[in-house]
Amino acid sequence: MRGGISLIILGLDPGLGTTGWGVIVAEGNRLSHIANGQIKTDSKAPLPERLVTLDAALTDLLLHYRPDGAAVEEVFVNVNPQSTLKLGQARGICLLAPARTGIAVGEYAARLVKKAVVGVGNAEKAQVHAMVSRLLPGVKIAGADAADALAVAITHAHHVASARRIF
Amino acid sequence: MRGGISLIILGLDPGLGTTGWGVIVAEGNRLSHIANGQIKTDSKAPLPERLVTLDAALTDLLLHYRPDGAAVEEVFVNVNPQSTLKLGQARGICLLAPARTGIAVGEYAARLVKKAVVGVGNAEKAQVHAMVSRLLPGVKIAGADAADALAVAITHAHHVASARRIF
Repeated sequence: MRGGISLIILGLDPGLGTTGWGVIVAEGNRLSHIANGQIKTDSKAPLPERLVTLDAALTDLLLHYRPDGAAVEEVFVNVNPQSTLKLGQARGICLLAPARTGIAVGEYAARLVKKAVVGVGNAEKAQVHAMVSRLLPGVKIAGADAADALAVAITHAHHVASARRIF
Repeated sequence: MRGGISLIILGLDPGLGTTGWGVIVAEGNRLSHIANGQIKTDSKAPLPERLVTLDAALTDLLLHYRPDGAAVEEVFVNVNPQSTLKLGQARGICLLAPARTGIAVGEYAARLVKKAVVGVGNAEKAQVHAMVSRLLPGVKIAGADAADALAVAITHAHHVASARRIF
């Protein structure tokens, strides 16, 4: 029973156009789904406005679900520097919003997320999606980015659980 | 006299390690210096914490100087994707912080900034620095990044002045 500590975890998969999010609860090794979704910004809006939209949506999530920890996927750096810059700007907001509330924000490489969820670091996207559905019974996943966000939240839960076993 | 409208402009030169800032007042074609400086973040601190430090410092500046507009340099995208990603994350915060307060945030390419300040798009850094000192008499510039931030603020002032002449 490990003292019945339960942790609410917010997972984020950053993107300027679409940011996936997922909230789960971890009680020892038991995981359950709370909510997931995708934040979209208008590609025709000026960049500063898109970042404000993303920040406001994240702030709403943080106020509503009051997570104990957050986890953000380490993004794939594209060969196209302009795409990498765009992604970096959105990722900055995804790291800032939870960190500003004082909670710890973990960063996990995509390979580590796949290993934690599927068991192998080179798993396909569809395998990750399928395993997220199996690990969180009854979940309805809002889309591919929300699935990735739930996967990074699950990775964070495993990480916290093993840290607890060690100490 | 153009009605004596005066605009306070915040210029920013984003960087994860050092972000330069400069505040000027534009009254018609007359520019004057208010303040400039450099925000530094601890390279040994976790990334989310560094972004919080940057965001908090920018928020302090916005509350203190209450600018009417902000201008951010469009960054040079490095050949190293990891550097571009880092810069993107810091730049996201530099765009978000002023935009969140409701003021317009302009973005200017480095070439445009050089052309506005020195007169040629391929000016050297030292020429930009010298022209900033000449355009803002009595200014003491905190460093190279602060000089770039003042240069982007001056560019924004010119841009607003020409827009006013057109309309």
